[in-house]
Amino acid sequence: MFISDKKIILGSGSPRRKELFSILCKEHKILTTDKEKDIDQSEPISFVQENAFIKAAAVLDDLKGVNDALIFGFDTVVSLDNEVLGKPKSREDAKKMLQKLSNNQHLVSTGYCILNSQKEIVLKSCDISYVHFGLISEPLIEWYLDQNEYADKAGSYGIQGEARIFIKKINGCYYNVMGLPVSKMFYEMEKLKEFTLSF
Amino acid sequence: MFISDKKIILGSGSPRRKELFSILCKEHKILTTDKEKDIDQSEPISFVQENAFIKAAAVLDDLKGVNDALIFGFDTVVSLDNEVLGKPKSREDAKKMLQKLSNNQHLVSTGYCILNSQKEIVLKSCDISYVHFGLISEPLIEWYLDQNEYADKAGSYGIQGEARIFIKKINGCYYNVMGLPVSKMFYEMEKLKEFTLSF
Repeated sequence: MFISDKKIILGSGSPRRKELFSILCKEHKILTTDKEKDIDQSEPISFVQENAFIKAAAVLDDLKGVNDALIFGFDTVVSLDNEVLGKPKSREDAKKMLQKLSNNQHLVSTGYCILNSQKEIVLKSCDISYVHFGLISEPLIEWYLDQNEYADKAGSYGIQGEARIFIKKINGCYYNVMGLPVSKMFYEMEKLKEFTLSF
Repeated sequence: MFISDKKIILGSGSPRRKELFSILCKEHKILTTDKEKDIDQSEPISFVQENAFIKAAAVLDDLKGVNDALIFGFDTVVSLDNEVLGKPKSREDAKKMLQKLSNNQHLVSTGYCILNSQKEIVLKSCDISYVHFGLISEPLIEWYLDQNEYADKAGSYGIQGEARIFIKKINGCYYNVMGLPVSKMFYEMEKLKEFTLSF
């Protein structure tokens, strides 16, 4: 668990990120923004880092002249053969995404960026995980859509929910797929002068 | 979700397995046994399948003449360089295991066996996952031991708890590491005449 003499601000409204972030830093304020770039189909790894920066910077702008703060921005995308699959616009859209992911391996990239009050980058990095789905048959897809877990999730699924049935394996960090690569961030934050470990 | 015209019996007392098993089969009775083989250091993959069989068979023996039942047995072990790490006997024992696992990759094997009332094997198989830990420093180990999550867990850790901080990546099924490879079992059970899928 990290502590800091600065205010720690989580720039994400995701309840999953909030829970995972609490493993790293106990005390924090949550502020969110809608700002992000249009999806650049070809480069998810640089794109998520840039979006994490944009989100953290937008939260900082909203704070108007805050001092001694550290703002965390995040962005997660699912991509398949260089096509980025965002959040579904409808059930039909979610169904099309799940059909693409069925019996296939896709990439989940989470970018993260920590800014200080001067909008200087304290840390900007990303983690990637490969996720392998089994065959999602037509009745299984319809059943999954009925669970209403697809909404507001990149790629139309949540790894921690009912999708467990068709997630055959992952190669990488499980929590990265949930939207916050806890372990990679822990080892990177350990090296930063802005944080002190408290056990 | 599978249904069956037979009684479904989960032969495991693990609360994690109970939760994961409910994804596969809703209606089931839980019965447990203490029976298992001594650990064979050299062959975890065959050993966990044999132990899963022994546990299911012991539950069946206790039932004395039950008809039309399907009994599920499971066994999970953690192994490192062919040394099997069982459940820790003490905090000191847990500490030694975590020191071995620190900054290293280990193997988690879960064997499973489904028996019918005639003690015939309906399914016997196993799933394996590789888990890579980051460096667990002395204060991090002591902090983790203070969380009291090590007891009753193969390898002295639970993947779903505070160990998240030092689990850098996994290669394989996350739920296999929790003790029940939901997805692999789902696709294998789909092919069995004993079960019908109900969505």
